Amino acid sequence: MARLVMKFGGTSVGTVERIKNVAQKVKREVDAGNDVAVVVSAMSGDTNRLIDLVSDVSSIHDAREYDVVVSSGEQVTIGLLSLALQGLGVSARSWLGWQVPVLTNSIHGAARIEDIQCEEIIKRFADNQVAVCAGFQGIGEDNRITTLGRGGSDTSAVALAAALKADRCDIYTDVDGIYTADPRIATKAAKLDKITYEEMLELASLGAKVLQTRSVEMAMKHRVKLQVLSSFEDLPGTMVVDEDDILEHQVVSGVTYTRDEAKVTLQQVADKPGVAALVFGALADAHVNVDMIVQNVSEDGKATDMTFTVGRMDIDRAMDVLDKLKEDVNCKAIVPDPNVVKVSIVGMGMRSHAGVAQTMFAALAEKGINIQVISTSEIKVSVLLAEEYTELAVRTLHSAFELDAP
Amino acid sequence: MARLVMKFGGTSVGTVERIKNVAQKVKREVDAGNDVAVVVSAMSGDTNRLIDLVSDVSSIHDAREYDVVVSSGEQVTIGLLSLALQGLGVSARSWLGWQVPVLTNSIHGAARIEDIQCEEIIKRFADNQVAVCAGFQGIGEDNRITTLGRGGSDTSAVALAAALKADRCDIYTDVDGIYTADPRIATKAAKLDKITYEEMLELASLGAKVLQTRSVEMAMKHRVKLQVLSSFEDLPGTMVVDEDDILEHQVVSGVTYTRDEAKVTLQQVADKPGVAALVFGALADAHVNVDMIVQNVSEDGKATDMTFTVGRMDIDRAMDVLDKLKEDVNCKAIVPDPNVVKVSIVGMGMRSHAGVAQTMFAALAEKGINIQVISTSEIKVSVLLAEEYTELAVRTLHSAFELDAP
Repeated sequence: MARLVMKFGGTSVGTVERIKNVAQKVKREVDAGNDVAVVVSAMSGDTNRLIDLVSDVSSIHDAREYDVVVSSGEQVTIGLLSLALQGLGVSARSWLGWQVPVLTNSIHGAARIEDIQCEEIIKRFADNQVAVCAGFQGIGEDNRITTLGRGGSDTSAVALAAALKADRCDIYTDVDGIYTADPRIATKAAKLDKITYEEMLELASLGAKVLQTRSVEMAMKHRVKLQVLSSFEDLPGTMVVDEDDILEHQVVSGVTYTRDEAKVTLQQVADKPGVAALVFGALADAHVNVDMIVQNVSEDGKATDMTFTVGRMDIDRAMDVLDKLKEDVNCKAIVPDPNVVKVSIVGMGMRSHAGVAQTMFAALAEKGINIQVISTSEIKVSVLLAEEYTELAVRTLHSAFELDAP
Repeated sequence: MARLVMKFGGTSVGTVERIKNVAQKVKREVDAGNDVAVVVSAMSGDTNRLIDLVSDVSSIHDAREYDVVVSSGEQVTIGLLSLALQGLGVSARSWLGWQVPVLTNSIHGAARIEDIQCEEIIKRFADNQVAVCAGFQGIGEDNRITTLGRGGSDTSAVALAAALKADRCDIYTDVDGIYTADPRIATKAAKLDKITYEEMLELASLGAKVLQTRSVEMAMKHRVKLQVLSSFEDLPGTMVVDEDDILEHQVVSGVTYTRDEAKVTLQQVADKPGVAALVFGALADAHVNVDMIVQNVSEDGKATDMTFTVGRMDIDRAMDVLDKLKEDVNCKAIVPDPNVVKVSIVGMGMRSHAGVAQTMFAALAEKGINIQVISTSEIKVSVLLAEEYTELAVRTLHSAFELDAP
C-alpha cells in the first residue's frame, strides 16, 4: 500500500470519454489498496477559450479577474472526474484550491505555492476517499483565487505530493516518458527508464515540454519521486529520481532543442568599458531576459560585434530598446535574427568526462553546421545554430553520443 | 444617491458584446452617484453545456459535484464583467458565493440562502467600487459550493438587496416589464407600471416566466422594491411594490397560462370514504405534486369521476402509481390527458369585487370553451381547459376584464 498523487493534463481529460478512462486508471490504484489524490487540468481547449474571452472583453489586464475566469476550467474537470469515479463505485470528492487550501502568494497569474494544508484529505484517505484536486490554482492572502501560470498543474501535483509525503507522483501525459530526444525528429530516440532531477531540470528549461521547469525544481527540493507516463497506454514511464538511484550515468542522457529564442547582433560596437552594462541594463529595465551572450575580441581594439539571444516573443520589444541606444553605444548596425535554434546536450556524466563539448563541436562541424553562440554549465552544453539545421543537428548529436536505440 | 442591486440574466450576458453593454448600464448608475452591486448569471447556453457534461459522465447524480461543475459558469461572467467595467474606468471586483459569503443550507442543487454577510462589499462602496457577484451560488455548512436551482440568480439578487438594504433591485431581462398577458398571444397586452408582490407571486406561480417564484416571495418578505426591465432598451420597466403603493387596484391585473400540467381522470370510482386518501397518499409518496382536484357528486351514491392535475413531467410516474391502485379504488378506467392548459386571472381588486369568477365563466362559455376544473384563491381564479383553446381563452379574458390597450 502506498500513497500516490496522479496528475492528468488537459489532453488526458479533454473529453467525457477520456475522463472516464482516467477514472478507470484511478480505480485500479485504489483497488490495489493505495491512498490516491488526483490533480487535473482543465479540459484541453477550455483554458484557451477562457483566455480568449478575457482578451475580447477588455484591453485592461487585471490579473485578479483573469485568475477568476481561467481557474473555472479546472473546477469543471474535478466535478466531472469525481462523478465518473463515483459511477465506478469509488468514493471521491473534489477540492478547489481554496478548499484544500493551497495557499499561495498574491502574484496573480504567476503565483507560487507557499503551503498546502491537506489534513482533511489525509483524514479521508482512511475512508478510502479519493481527493480530486484542481491543479493550477490556489488562494492568495486576500482570499482571492490565484493561478500558477501555464503548465502550473504539474507544480500543483508535485507540491501536493510533497505535502502529503506521497510515495510517488505520477504525471500522466500524452507521451509515455522522457526520451533521449524528440522522437518526431530523432526516430532512433529511446525512452529513458530513469533520469536525475538535475538532468530533467536542464531538459525542461532547454526545450523539452513534458514537465514544467518549476515542478521539477520543486520535486528536486522536496525529493518527490516523479514518474512521467502515458494516459493512453499501460506502460511504465520514466522515473525522475535522485542521482544516487542511478548506478551508472550516461555521459549524455538527452539531446534537446528550443526555437523560443532569437538572436541579436550589435555590429561594430565601440570596444570600451560600460557598453555591455548600458545594453543589458536597458533590456533588463524593459523586462527582456537575455540568455546566451558572446562578444568577439576586437582586432583593432576599437570595435567589435556583440551577439546575444532573447526570447523570440520579446524580439520587437528588445529592438525598440536597442534602437534608442544605437547612438550611445555607437554601433554600425543592430541585426535581429529570429531564425535560430538552441540545441543542447544534457548529462550528469559530463562532470566526469572531458572532451564532451569537443565531441559535440566536431560532430556538428563534420555536417557543415556553423555554431553561432555557445553556452555551458556543469551538466549541459548548448549551441545556437541556424534554425534550418535543427533536425540534422539533433540527429547528429543523438548518434554522436551513442544514444540511438539498437 | 441610492444603493442599487442590478441583476442580469444569461441572455443579457450571453456574448462579450452584451457583457460590454451591461458594463455601460452599470457605469451609468455609478456615474449618477449610486452604490452598485451587480448579480449575474452564466452566459446563456453555458449552464446547459455544463449540465450535459455532468449527465454524459455518469448516471450517478451527486448533487455536490453537480454544484461544483455548474457553478463555474457564473465564475466566468463575474470575472469578465469586472474586466469590462475596469475597461470603462469603473472600479470593480468580482465575488463568488464563498467569498461574499452567501451562506446557504446544504441542500445541493436546490439550496436556500440563510444569510449574506456583505460588510466588505458595503465597505468598498465608500471607494466607489462595484461588487460583481455570482448569482445562483452560495456556500453550504460544510465549506462546499451550493447552487440554488434553476433561475436562482433572481433569488440571489433579491437576497443581496435585502442584506444590503438596497433602495431597489433591478432585474434586467429580455422583456421590458410585466404585461397584462403574454404579448405573443394577446397583441393588445399592455405593460404594467406597477404590480403588487401578491399579484406577481400568483403570476409567477401560474406561468409568467419573468421572475422566479422564490425571488418574489423573498422580495415580499423583506419588502425589497423590485423593478423588471429590459437589458436591451432604455425604458422604465414594471415596479413590484407594496399594496399601499398602488392607489387604485384593477379588478384583474393580468391573465396568465401554463401548459405545465396534465389531467388525470379516475372514471367511476367507488364513492366511499378513504378513496381520496388512498390515491393522493400514494402520489405524495411517489413525490408527485397534485394541483387542482375536482370530484363530481355521484348520482346513484355508488360511483363518481375524480379528476385532478399533476405536473406534465410527472404524468408517467403518476400513471405507474395509479395503475397499481386500480383494483383497490375499484374504478372503471384511469384516463390521462396531457393536452390541457391552466388559464388564470389575477388581481388584488377581486377581494372587493363580487362576480369576477362569474364574468370569467360567462366570457369563456360565450366562446364555446368548456371548463374542466376550477380552482380559486383570494386574488386569482384558475380554470383548466383543452389546450387548443389557450390563445382564444387568454384573449377573451383579456378583453372581458378590459385590459386591452387602447
